[in-house]
Amino acid sequence: MRPVVAVTMGDPAGIGPELCLRLLQMSQLQQLCQPLVYGDWAVLQRVARQLGWPEPPRNLVRDLGGLEADAVVPGHVDARCGQASYRYVCQAIEDALAGRVAAICTGPIHKEAWHRAGVPYPGHTELLAERTRSPFTCMMLTSETITCSLVTGHVGLGAVPRLLNVETILQTIRWTARTLRQLRQREVRLVVCGLNPHAGEHGLFGEQEEERFILPAVVQAGREGYQVEGPIPPDTAFIPRIRHRTDAYICMYHDQGLIPLKALAFEDAVNVTLGLPIVRTSVDHGTAFDIAWTGQAEVQSLVHAVELAARLSREQRVDHLWDQV
Amino acid sequence: MRPVVAVTMGDPAGIGPELCLRLLQMSQLQQLCQPLVYGDWAVLQRVARQLGWPEPPRNLVRDLGGLEADAVVPGHVDARCGQASYRYVCQAIEDALAGRVAAICTGPIHKEAWHRAGVPYPGHTELLAERTRSPFTCMMLTSETITCSLVTGHVGLGAVPRLLNVETILQTIRWTARTLRQLRQREVRLVVCGLNPHAGEHGLFGEQEEERFILPAVVQAGREGYQVEGPIPPDTAFIPRIRHRTDAYICMYHDQGLIPLKALAFEDAVNVTLGLPIVRTSVDHGTAFDIAWTGQAEVQSLVHAVELAARLSREQRVDHLWDQV
Repeated sequence: MRPVVAVTMGDPAGIGPELCLRLLQMSQLQQLCQPLVYGDWAVLQRVARQLGWPEPPRNLVRDLGGLEADAVVPGHVDARCGQASYRYVCQAIEDALAGRVAAICTGPIHKEAWHRAGVPYPGHTELLAERTRSPFTCMMLTSETITCSLVTGHVGLGAVPRLLNVETILQTIRWTARTLRQLRQREVRLVVCGLNPHAGEHGLFGEQEEERFILPAVVQAGREGYQVEGPIPPDTAFIPRIRHRTDAYICMYHDQGLIPLKALAFEDAVNVTLGLPIVRTSVDHGTAFDIAWTGQAEVQSLVHAVELAARLSREQRVDHLWDQV
Repeated sequence: MRPVVAVTMGDPAGIGPELCLRLLQMSQLQQLCQPLVYGDWAVLQRVARQLGWPEPPRNLVRDLGGLEADAVVPGHVDARCGQASYRYVCQAIEDALAGRVAAICTGPIHKEAWHRAGVPYPGHTELLAERTRSPFTCMMLTSETITCSLVTGHVGLGAVPRLLNVETILQTIRWTARTLRQLRQREVRLVVCGLNPHAGEHGLFGEQEEERFILPAVVQAGREGYQVEGPIPPDTAFIPRIRHRTDAYICMYHDQGLIPLKALAFEDAVNVTLGLPIVRTSVDHGTAFDIAWTGQAEVQSLVHAVELAARLSREQRVDHLWDQV
């Protein structure tokens, strides 16, 4: 009874194809789930041949064809590759929404290639949000050591204060708690960080964002039964004593979460998109064009991401989603 | 030939007095320097008696009297205590400027007590800057594991972008490099963090603060002979591989530096004020009113701060500053 996880191949000119080839060779992973690669069979074949690796099992690849494999130049930004990697994700979303796969794990795309291909989304998350009609999404990065969810994401630091509001913080708390409860099979404890140094020190620094937005969200979440404390001064939130009693941090901006996460759990974290009606995880790295098709890329991040997708999809288990391949 | 380090006692109602008592009992420290406590003899006597500890050596205390010891209630905010702790710092600055002590190490004051006493400075740094006529100051936090200097300090997160400019970043680089060269007796390597996620990703996030302020400062510092790189994406700046080749980080805002510092080197860091004509270090904690006068407070942070003050003052060694006590 293994969930099928759609693994999108990412940009064909990047390290995505070789990572998928490695993934399909890992028999241990296949005890937990059945990865199904969404990509171009001809590209996978060409990369396998170039590296002297075995061809992947044909039935574990959903061939979305259409890309001429010989035209792909590893390490080059190409509109055709952007178009192809976009197609993989679109198909995976469609299949997940239709219940044909249990979860999606996305390989690395190249944002400029998407742009050149005329794809009307800056990245995966915006595409997922629109196709699944999800008004709220947020990024959670999780590892054994530390887990952080981000209230705001890829925006300038100066724009962060005006993007905060009670509802978005509250939604981030709710989704993070529910997702981790499912993963850890127990109640979880969250710490909500302040925005300003010392969490504003009673309004001394900043525009009282702690009092206006963060505290009301924490109070409301407490009323709803979540175990949550905050706003905590951001610099003390991550000291060992607090870390050891915290399942996840609710962070107000990208680097508030990603600085401690990468400092403490570099390369172990998996990216999960919260707020969607489907399970979606992602590798924690880019296309690494500089080493594409050389076989040097580390598969560990993709393995972690696929494992997590499988674990998150368990609760949504419907028999017809399993072992269809 | 030991430098005399003026150690200000901090707020009499806090943990400062007991930390000073402990410090003066440490014979090992006194091989490196001669701490001289700036405080109230009567308060030190009363705390020693209450804890059953020996009286401190009379000649190691610069008694600035004036406070009625019996009136001090441990753990209470009091204008008289604010006034007293302000007096200790003023005298220490005067003595450092006059060359009567080699360095200052400040104990924890209570900002509200200063405010109630009508002290016209929010904290130590502003007082030091004005009394020493220093137009530029910045905070450096240093430990064996990681060192961070802050381009902006105790300000709201939203105010950070408009406080950045090339000159301030450049001054922070220069002072950090020079100070660490002195401590480590070799050339040092600095990493300058970006402001925005991914260091702005070529202007995609933020207002191009990386291109407008940070890069020009890094280029100019390179021309001046400093070994410096940046702007580096803040979240990757602190991964182990980069950390191991970096002597110090130049951070654009308080929590960009203090989050990784406290996560990785909690309680080991010493605060140094750069930009002053005198050496000033500080403990890394507050007055801890909740445990004041109970003897529970850890003296390690103060010991580190005094040691660092002594090491930083070496290069300024003038014979008459040594062993005067």
